[in-house]
Amino acid sequence: MATKKKNAFYAQSGGVTAVINASACGVIQTARAHGGKIGKVYAGRNGIIGALTEDLIDTSKESAAAIEGLRSTPSGAFGSCRFKLKSLEANKREYERLIEVFKAHDIGYFFYNGGGDSADTCYKVSQLSESMGYPIQAIHVPKTVDNDLPITDCCPGFGSVAKYVAVSALEASFDVRSMAKTSTKVFVLEVMGRHAGWIAAAGGLIDKQGIPVVVLFPEIAFDKANFLARVQELVKKHGFCTVVVSEGCHDADGKFLAEQGTRDAFGHAQLGGAAPVVANMIKEAHGYKFHWAVADYLQRSARHIASKTDVKQAYELGKAAVQLALKGHNAVMPTIDRVSDKPYKYKIGMAPLSKVANVEKFMPRDFISADGFGITEKCRKYLMPLIQGEDYPRYKDGLPVYVTLKNVAVAKKLPPFELK
Amino acid sequence: MATKKKNAFYAQSGGVTAVINASACGVIQTARAHGGKIGKVYAGRNGIIGALTEDLIDTSKESAAAIEGLRSTPSGAFGSCRFKLKSLEANKREYERLIEVFKAHDIGYFFYNGGGDSADTCYKVSQLSESMGYPIQAIHVPKTVDNDLPITDCCPGFGSVAKYVAVSALEASFDVRSMAKTSTKVFVLEVMGRHAGWIAAAGGLIDKQGIPVVVLFPEIAFDKANFLARVQELVKKHGFCTVVVSEGCHDADGKFLAEQGTRDAFGHAQLGGAAPVVANMIKEAHGYKFHWAVADYLQRSARHIASKTDVKQAYELGKAAVQLALKGHNAVMPTIDRVSDKPYKYKIGMAPLSKVANVEKFMPRDFISADGFGITEKCRKYLMPLIQGEDYPRYKDGLPVYVTLKNVAVAKKLPPFELK
Repeated sequence: MATKKKNAFYAQSGGVTAVINASACGVIQTARAHGGKIGKVYAGRNGIIGALTEDLIDTSKESAAAIEGLRSTPSGAFGSCRFKLKSLEANKREYERLIEVFKAHDIGYFFYNGGGDSADTCYKVSQLSESMGYPIQAIHVPKTVDNDLPITDCCPGFGSVAKYVAVSALEASFDVRSMAKTSTKVFVLEVMGRHAGWIAAAGGLIDKQGIPVVVLFPEIAFDKANFLARVQELVKKHGFCTVVVSEGCHDADGKFLAEQGTRDAFGHAQLGGAAPVVANMIKEAHGYKFHWAVADYLQRSARHIASKTDVKQAYELGKAAVQLALKGHNAVMPTIDRVSDKPYKYKIGMAPLSKVANVEKFMPRDFISADGFGITEKCRKYLMPLIQGEDYPRYKDGLPVYVTLKNVAVAKKLPPFELK
Repeated sequence: MATKKKNAFYAQSGGVTAVINASACGVIQTARAHGGKIGKVYAGRNGIIGALTEDLIDTSKESAAAIEGLRSTPSGAFGSCRFKLKSLEANKREYERLIEVFKAHDIGYFFYNGGGDSADTCYKVSQLSESMGYPIQAIHVPKTVDNDLPITDCCPGFGSVAKYVAVSALEASFDVRSMAKTSTKVFVLEVMGRHAGWIAAAGGLIDKQGIPVVVLFPEIAFDKANFLARVQELVKKHGFCTVVVSEGCHDADGKFLAEQGTRDAFGHAQLGGAAPVVANMIKEAHGYKFHWAVADYLQRSARHIASKTDVKQAYELGKAAVQLALKGHNAVMPTIDRVSDKPYKYKIGMAPLSKVANVEKFMPRDFISADGFGITEKCRKYLMPLIQGEDYPRYKDGLPVYVTLKNVAVAKKLPPFELK
C-alpha cells in the first residue's frame, strides 16, 4: 500500500462499451471522495499508450458535472486502444517505461479498465513494480461485452449489449412476422462474440415472447444441414423465423462463416459478414426471402437502451477498485459474485489477477439447448437479471446528451518514448 | 357518405414501421368512439390480401387494453403484405372482388395504411366503388419510413427511423472516436431509403455534436474520388469519421453500390450491403481500419427509441382518417401540414389521393450541402422537430411489453378467391 498520498492512473483498454465510462465515473468520483489518500487521477490518453508516451490527462480539470455525465455516456471518454504489451521477456523496456512514467508523476495506483488482455498487462505491471522496487498497486476493472472473463459472474458492458440484442431481435422479429405472408420470412441478425456466445445467447431470450429463433454459437460447430432443417421446420410451423448468429460462428474445421480477411493489432481475425452468408444459404436451400442486419458497433455503444443493472455494476466495480486499492490490495480485480437469481442479489468480490489473466470463459454446454440452436432454462436464469431495468440518458433536441471531456494534458517530464 | 351504420375495413400495407400500429390504434379507438355511425372495424389479415381472400379480423374481439397497447407496439399487428394490385385494366377482377367482400360484410369505409403504392390502390378502389355503384369511402392513412409521400410534410414512421439513425450514428461515432488512435478510424452505417435520402439525412444531424460525418444520398450520384478525398480530409483533421450510406446510393449510371440481385413483389431491387462495399473501398484507398453496420429492419422496428412526435402524429392521422370519413370525405389522405419550425407547430390537413398516388418526394437539392456529403441548415430545420421527444414502451423483465393480438377471423360468406 502506498504509504503517502499518491496520484492514480486510470486507462481504458480494448473495445469500448456503453458503460465503461460509468466505471471511469466510479473510479474518479471515489478517488475524489478520498482526496486525503489519493491525489489526482490521471487518465491515459488512448489507453495504455497514454502511459507509454507520457500523454496523461488531468481529470481534476473536469467539473463534477462532467464526471457525473460519464455515467450515461457510451464509449471511452479518454480514448482506448488496441495495443497489447508483449511479454516481459520480449519487451521489458515498455514495462519499465510504464514504471518510469508512474514514478515521474508520483503515481501509486494503476487502474486498468479492460478485458482479458488488459488483466494480463495489469498483472505484469504489478509484478514488475515489485521487482523494480517502485510500489504500484495495480487493480483491474473488468470490462468486456464478450462477458468472457473468469471468476466474475458477469462483465460490465455485457448486460447492455445483451439487452440491446434481445430488444432489437424482438422488434425485428415482430416486423418479420408482419411481412412473412408475402415477403420476408427469415431475419438474420449478426452479433458480436469472437469465441464466446454470450451475446448471441441473449437473442435466445425472445423465444418466450413467441418468436421462433435459431441461435448460432461459436461454441457449437456449425452444421449446415441441421441448421437448414431447423430453419425450415420453424418457418413451416410459424411462417417465419429469426436467426441470431455470432460473428465467431464456425464449422468443425474452425472456418468462420465469414471473415473479412484482416486482423487487428492482437492478431485476432476481424470478423463481420456472417449474416449475409447465412441469409443467402437459407435462400438457396429453401427460397425464403430474407433480410439481414449486422449490428456491429451499434450494439456495444447503445447507451440509449443500456441495462440499468449493467450501468450500476459498472459504476460499482470502478468504485470497488479504488476501495480495494485503499485497503492495500494489489494485482486483483473486483468481481460480481452472484448470490441468487430471483430475486437477483450479488455482492462485490475480489479475484487475484494471476487467475484472471489469459483465461477465457465460454458458455457452459448446459446453457445451450441439446440441438445447439437455443438456450436452456439455466442460461435464461443467468441472463435475465443482467438485462433488468432501463437507465435512459437525458435528451436534448431529440438526441441523448453525451459528454465530451476537455481532456487537458499533464505537462511532460520525461524524454519522448517511441512505440514499437 | 355511408347513409346508414356501416362497418369499416382497415389494412396495413408494405413495409411496417415502429408506429404503424399507433395509426391502427387511432383508427380503431376513434371508430369505437363513434359506434353510432361505424359498426365493427374489420382488419385485413396480411393487408389487402386479407380483403381479397375474405380473411378478415374482427377487431371488436380485442380488449380496449390490447388496442391501447398497439400505440406502443412496433410492426403490423394484423400482418402486412407486399402485394400491389395491378391496374384496373390488367386485373379488374381483383378490384371487383374487393368490392364484393366489402359488400358481403357491409363495409362502407376503407382505411388503407401505407405508402405510395397503397395510396394508388386506395384511389382505384374509390373509383371502382363509384363505377360499380357500391359506395365505399376510401381514406388513405400515410405510412412510410422513406418519407417520400407528397403533400404531407412528413410520413409517420419516418421520424422514429430518423431518431434511431441519428442516435445510433452518434453512439457508434463516440465509439470510433475512442478507438481511432490504434484501431478503427472509419465507421460505415448503412440505412434504408431506396430512392429518397431522408433517412440518410438524419445521420447528418450528428455533425452538430462534433462528429465528422459523410452522408451518401441516393439523390447525389456517387463520385468515388470525391468521396474518398472527403473521408481522408476528415480523418486527417479529426482522427476518425463516420459514413452514413443510403442503401439506394448509386453512381451516375444508376448502378447501386451494392445489390443483392433479388427483387421484391413490386419489382424493386432488394438492396443491402452498400456498407461493406464502401468500407472496403476506403480501406483500399487509405488503409484505414473500418467497422460497418447494416441496420436493416432494426431501424424501422425500433419502437424502444421511437420519436414522441412521430408516435403522436401516427395516432392523430389514424384518428383523422376516421373523422374525415365521418365528414363524408372520399379518396383523400389526412396530412401533416407544418405551420412553423420553431416552435414546431402543425395541423392536420387533407390531400386528394389523385395527387398522392404514384408521386415520390425526393430530398430537395437545397437540403443537401453543396459538396453533396452533408445536410444544410434548411434540412436541419426540417428534421429536428420530427425526432423530438421520447415515447418509451413499458418494460417487464428487461424487455419491452409489445402486444400480440388474438386476431379472430370473421366467418366467411363468399366462395374462395384465388390470388394470381
